[in-house]
Amino acid sequence: MGEPDVKRLKTDDEPEYELIYWPGLPGRGEFVRLLFEEAGVPYTDHAQVPDQAVAQVLALTDAKNTGDASNPPIFAVPALRHGAVLLNQTPNILLYLAPKLGLSPPPTETAFYHLHQASLTILDGFCNEVHETHHPIAVSLFYEDQKAEAKRRSKAFIEERAPKYLAYVQRLLDAKTSGEGPWIHGNSLTYVDLVLFQETKCIDGTLFAFPKTMAQLKSSGKYDGVFALYDAVKERPKIKAYLASERHQKYADGIWRHYPELEATMEAEVTVKE
Amino acid sequence: MGEPDVKRLKTDDEPEYELIYWPGLPGRGEFVRLLFEEAGVPYTDHAQVPDQAVAQVLALTDAKNTGDASNPPIFAVPALRHGAVLLNQTPNILLYLAPKLGLSPPPTETAFYHLHQASLTILDGFCNEVHETHHPIAVSLFYEDQKAEAKRRSKAFIEERAPKYLAYVQRLLDAKTSGEGPWIHGNSLTYVDLVLFQETKCIDGTLFAFPKTMAQLKSSGKYDGVFALYDAVKERPKIKAYLASERHQKYADGIWRHYPELEATMEAEVTVKE
Repeated sequence: MGEPDVKRLKTDDEPEYELIYWPGLPGRGEFVRLLFEEAGVPYTDHAQVPDQAVAQVLALTDAKNTGDASNPPIFAVPALRHGAVLLNQTPNILLYLAPKLGLSPPPTETAFYHLHQASLTILDGFCNEVHETHHPIAVSLFYEDQKAEAKRRSKAFIEERAPKYLAYVQRLLDAKTSGEGPWIHGNSLTYVDLVLFQETKCIDGTLFAFPKTMAQLKSSGKYDGVFALYDAVKERPKIKAYLASERHQKYADGIWRHYPELEATMEAEVTVKE
Repeated sequence: MGEPDVKRLKTDDEPEYELIYWPGLPGRGEFVRLLFEEAGVPYTDHAQVPDQAVAQVLALTDAKNTGDASNPPIFAVPALRHGAVLLNQTPNILLYLAPKLGLSPPPTETAFYHLHQASLTILDGFCNEVHETHHPIAVSLFYEDQKAEAKRRSKAFIEERAPKYLAYVQRLLDAKTSGEGPWIHGNSLTYVDLVLFQETKCIDGTLFAFPKTMAQLKSSGKYDGVFALYDAVKERPKIKAYLASERHQKYADGIWRHYPELEATMEAEVTVKE
């Protein structure tokens, strides 16, 4: 497949990009932010004004909201506004944005769909399944009310799911469709590398839910490509500047939570099955 | 937005379409089948030859498979082969196929992304979350080994998630982007109507995991559009012929399982919160 045809499609008369998301945490909004930051394309992040952000999210997702003349209602945030267009569903927003920001081939190329399937799989594995580890019964219940179930689910995640997803990403990197350099597709960075970067923040240790598990998986040497990609993204000048900036939200009780007890018994009872 | 620009793009020199999936159950492969059946476009369903199908699935998803020169490896099935193209992830396959089969506007239209976000949301709600009700701890464990957790998770699904997702689909039908007739987008059937049809097989009662819950939600009269859409799809001549044919796989222990005990205590303990 070789080098993707990634041209910057944005022009000066492009309408403004607006991210609408909950304030106070990176959450799923972070995937959208990383695309804008890497591309160096201006966007309005409404989460930066917390009171307004909450009101906007509640209005957009209100059960009485039936959208407007050209947009159906959305189920949840993050949402992207781009002129008259309103979209939601994180992988869908990335799909729409990435070619416009020069971070994906256009829909006329098969690689557009190959990148999307990687994006969906990485989001399933490290975002949705990690959220389920601390909320296996109901999002409406507190963690404390589903702690026993969370321990059981975490054991399965540590033993089976985390190694399975990491091995898959390593296979993507070993594939012929991954060219020179550390990237998943072709010879240059695409948005899927940013998705993986966000999902593997785990190797920072402190930020992620399962630092011990990830340390063990890293030391196995089987997923070196995955960890090298993480480092490569982290050193991108625009990403580095973003992470050090005020625009970057600090971690809180969102998708990625570190409850030490969920892997506390790891040495004794849990074995990573690779 | 009005009538989508849905032209049948397939021509006689189009390469063959092939579905690769587990044999013996409708599963996630069924979404792909419904698109071909409604479009009346020939496809090879490898699941029809069970022994070969299992070997194909295992080869495609093998941990040593790193794809080929133009396709990265896939994580799981269903997979679609279309000439030299190999794709996976159900929503991604539908996204690729639907414009080619005349069941979606093309990627140059905003509606392409609006339909995808609806498809992702419906698949999240009725497919992924329903699967979690009987496997809330681990896919690798038997149902019997996570029955207590399944009861708790089912209670949350019945009370909160099922009404929430149904209400959202009803809002899509009430939106201005839904035109005349029973369809989610514009004035004619799109693939998202087929996704919803498959997900709401619940109202057949016998097929679905939560027949009592769905009967109660139906009788509320709040989601009449959703159930009318189901009936409209069921009466499509090609869909009707397909469901009565040998090509249609019978239900088994897949995503949608009916364990009466998961809603057995419903009258006594569980209240649908609408």
